Amino acid sequence: MTTTDAPRHIIRRTTLGDIPTRSARRRPQSIALWDGDESLTYAALEAQANQLAHHLLASGLQPGAKVAMLASNSIEMVVATFGIFKAGMVWVPVNHMLGGADVRYVIEHAEAAMVLADHELLQRPDLAPTVQELGLPVLVLSPGRTSGATTPLLQALQGQPATPPGIAIDDDDLVLLMYTSGTTGKQKGVMHSHASVHSALLSNAAEGKMDIHMVATLGLPLFHCAQFSGLGAGLIAGSSMVLFRAFDPHVYLDAVERRRITQLTGLPLMYAALLQVQTQQPRDLSSLQMCTYGMAPMPRPLLEKLTAHFCPSFALGSGQTEAFPITVRFRPEQQLQRFGSYWGTSTMANDTAIMDGDGNLLPWGEVGEIVHRGANVMLGYYKDPEATAAVSRFGWHHTGDIGKFDEDGQLLFLDRTKDMIKTGGENVPSIKVEEVYLRHPAVANAAVVGLPHARWGEAVTVFVLLKPGAQATVDELIGHGRQQLAGFEAPKHVQILQEFPMTPTGKIQKHRLRTQFLELFSNQATTA
Amino acid sequence: MTTTDAPRHIIRRTTLGDIPTRSARRRPQSIALWDGDESLTYAALEAQANQLAHHLLASGLQPGAKVAMLASNSIEMVVATFGIFKAGMVWVPVNHMLGGADVRYVIEHAEAAMVLADHELLQRPDLAPTVQELGLPVLVLSPGRTSGATTPLLQALQGQPATPPGIAIDDDDLVLLMYTSGTTGKQKGVMHSHASVHSALLSNAAEGKMDIHMVATLGLPLFHCAQFSGLGAGLIAGSSMVLFRAFDPHVYLDAVERRRITQLTGLPLMYAALLQVQTQQPRDLSSLQMCTYGMAPMPRPLLEKLTAHFCPSFALGSGQTEAFPITVRFRPEQQLQRFGSYWGTSTMANDTAIMDGDGNLLPWGEVGEIVHRGANVMLGYYKDPEATAAVSRFGWHHTGDIGKFDEDGQLLFLDRTKDMIKTGGENVPSIKVEEVYLRHPAVANAAVVGLPHARWGEAVTVFVLLKPGAQATVDELIGHGRQQLAGFEAPKHVQILQEFPMTPTGKIQKHRLRTQFLELFSNQATTA
Repeated sequence: MTTTDAPRHIIRRTTLGDIPTRSARRRPQSIALWDGDESLTYAALEAQANQLAHHLLASGLQPGAKVAMLASNSIEMVVATFGIFKAGMVWVPVNHMLGGADVRYVIEHAEAAMVLADHELLQRPDLAPTVQELGLPVLVLSPGRTSGATTPLLQALQGQPATPPGIAIDDDDLVLLMYTSGTTGKQKGVMHSHASVHSALLSNAAEGKMDIHMVATLGLPLFHCAQFSGLGAGLIAGSSMVLFRAFDPHVYLDAVERRRITQLTGLPLMYAALLQVQTQQPRDLSSLQMCTYGMAPMPRPLLEKLTAHFCPSFALGSGQTEAFPITVRFRPEQQLQRFGSYWGTSTMANDTAIMDGDGNLLPWGEVGEIVHRGANVMLGYYKDPEATAAVSRFGWHHTGDIGKFDEDGQLLFLDRTKDMIKTGGENVPSIKVEEVYLRHPAVANAAVVGLPHARWGEAVTVFVLLKPGAQATVDELIGHGRQQLAGFEAPKHVQILQEFPMTPTGKIQKHRLRTQFLELFSNQATTA
Repeated sequence: MTTTDAPRHIIRRTTLGDIPTRSARRRPQSIALWDGDESLTYAALEAQANQLAHHLLASGLQPGAKVAMLASNSIEMVVATFGIFKAGMVWVPVNHMLGGADVRYVIEHAEAAMVLADHELLQRPDLAPTVQELGLPVLVLSPGRTSGATTPLLQALQGQPATPPGIAIDDDDLVLLMYTSGTTGKQKGVMHSHASVHSALLSNAAEGKMDIHMVATLGLPLFHCAQFSGLGAGLIAGSSMVLFRAFDPHVYLDAVERRRITQLTGLPLMYAALLQVQTQQPRDLSSLQMCTYGMAPMPRPLLEKLTAHFCPSFALGSGQTEAFPITVRFRPEQQLQRFGSYWGTSTMANDTAIMDGDGNLLPWGEVGEIVHRGANVMLGYYKDPEATAAVSRFGWHHTGDIGKFDEDGQLLFLDRTKDMIKTGGENVPSIKVEEVYLRHPAVANAAVVGLPHARWGEAVTVFVLLKPGAQATVDELIGHGRQQLAGFEAPKHVQILQEFPMTPTGKIQKHRLRTQFLELFSNQATTA
């Protein structure tokens, strides 16, 4: 593409595949990624991602093809993701913490043409038959041995050109299809363009004051929008990032000391564990400048201890895959000023307002639905125009979250209209768990809510009525959920009731269950 | 637009008119602008810009109309600019330091439908008849009295709604037409879309680490892309900014102390003057965190003194209107590491490379043309597809500047292929000055170059051959230029030669004139 006249959009384009190209041009020998003792420079990331793009194109896939990914955080995962972008294809990252049936649903719904997967995940009893039955070509990403139809990543790169393929990519082209739990239980494919994601990444880089001196953690799953956004923004800024496959506070703290990590991202429960371990076995944390947390507010005593003993500055980022991915930020200067479910103010990429049911924007102090506008809003849900229309009313994106601005214009989250539980960094639709319990032979009716929990944010809690004369113990019922659901979806507690609070029209009043059992987990330890 | 179903692009849009809307929603009562003792909150900026948008639409102008502006920096100028954006119209800021004929050329070439102008500029002898002859409706912006067909801004706002007009604006719509000196002497209209400018503003906010705590100067003319970009990025970040109409080091230093300014932008000659005044009459400059400069490198002794005594951190931003507006940044950590015409590395919004004449990208160390790609590149030159095509070859935007990357990947500016002089923050095409001198009755031939000058960056310098037997003194010749050209275009010196260095084919060898007279201004004081 550099030796022929090109259309204007080639010059102006800002596609996700260009991110490593641009940073590699600026700082080729700087380390983009650390993964244990391994590292990858920007030049190597650029070259390998280009090689994978050429491999995908040579495999017969066309630009626009969907490529599913089943992977834990690794250098190979990042190379593969940017290779997909560079080939003009669509990245479909799959949450592999879900069970085999849900994984299959996503890959089939997305009409993926290929699967890129970790060797380890391809061995998992529920995933192995799923991937086999899909009958798609599989490329093994990380610690891979060739077996049957699979091909290891490094083999695929060999002999391919290390320069970008000459693919015409428009900023408005679809680049990622990220599935998010719907309240109906079926996951919905959120479609984003290069332009929408790039605007969010630039805004993230600005909000996080990211630069070439930043060393950041990538410890939450990259298949979710939040951590992927941290990766993308850091690569735009030319930063170094440290990958983690799972959370181990000792490993994290060692890495902070060894790699001089400046920015850490985690869930409140992770910070509690880090603080505890640091207290027992102190490391040099003097490099830490900013800690970002997500998914749940930070309990006041924990935040005060963390600010005093762990990191000088904290911020909360909140958002959803549909408005990529951090739309509001509870900023460092507000952190010790007000407590509760504060979400702060909107980022530089979007605006945020409170709306009533008729599309009127409400003044500060009034309660309504939290809505967003901005370049970072999705193109829509894949193959679901009704669901897209339902969240796209009155010129704003509708989150399904209820909130208000306080007298200082700080956004306070109050409730969720969607029946969704947010637990340990994952979304669990109540209806999915209810369906599992309604299939249990002893259960007459089931209602599932999320109750406040110091470790999980919300704990999946099941309330059941037993059929007349039926018998079941709490342990049996908990075991039923563990068998039928992914680990994070399974209930932390099952409570057998004699009756449910009901509306006159016969609906279960979940808010009354929530109020009555609000303190159920209040004596649980804040750290594991 | 909030009570009816709207197309998707309304939700995703990121138009320049939305910038005050979004910041006003976050921090309505914060001060966006200071102008002497006057200030304007974000809420007031949003309301007044909306009112002006309604006024423009009520005046019969349609979205897409071009609105010319002749104004010095003021609150009214900023309100009017964002009013134009909000009406879906195209801002045509005119460099009023140019003479009447050039101003007329711009307004006519842009096909402007209205002129927004300062009262003071409308009185200027060369501008008054120009504006009158154009026969366009005129709205007086600042210190305005009603006279004839003019209407003062504040009167226009009265009674208009303070909410945004319901205009459908697409991110890719033309939003500004900014004229820049062409080497042929005629100015060219650079077209930019909301999307291209917005990407540059977000990148500027990120590079400048702008946030709500920033207090920045707006002291260079806002009709140029660099200072307008500082305004836009600061408004996105929710910062406060202090307007200046002209440069007076005492006024600047008083403002730093009084408004606790954190970020200052200026030319090297301004910093020299600021340092001198601060040495004589010290103010409290402890609020200063970052000083940005442009247009010329900073002499080493000056930068060392400034870093020690004035501001801890300096950065150079370079760019051009065609790639909006800062494409490369010589970053703080490099400032005292290497000296000369270093431009540093590209910003987060674009990439930068060195290209040979055949469209091949060159490795570090090799000399070629500096080219850019990114969302911040212009749509093209208005009504000039040939000139657009000439700078849009091989998939990159061509700057006409010659440079190379050094062994650390830092961009070094070496020369300009365009025959353009950069003096005191303004561009002067050599050919324009040459034409003026060729019209002088005593002059046989003229060659104009920019020579290094501590105050002006480059000083416009005229070399002439006199006609056989003709007589003219240097003072007469300097006076001729002052009469025919705008102040910044007039020569700082005229040198009468007996012959020009020529190529065998009869072209003047300007590079030999530059080399021979390189030290001509080396004894000039660095401050006025």
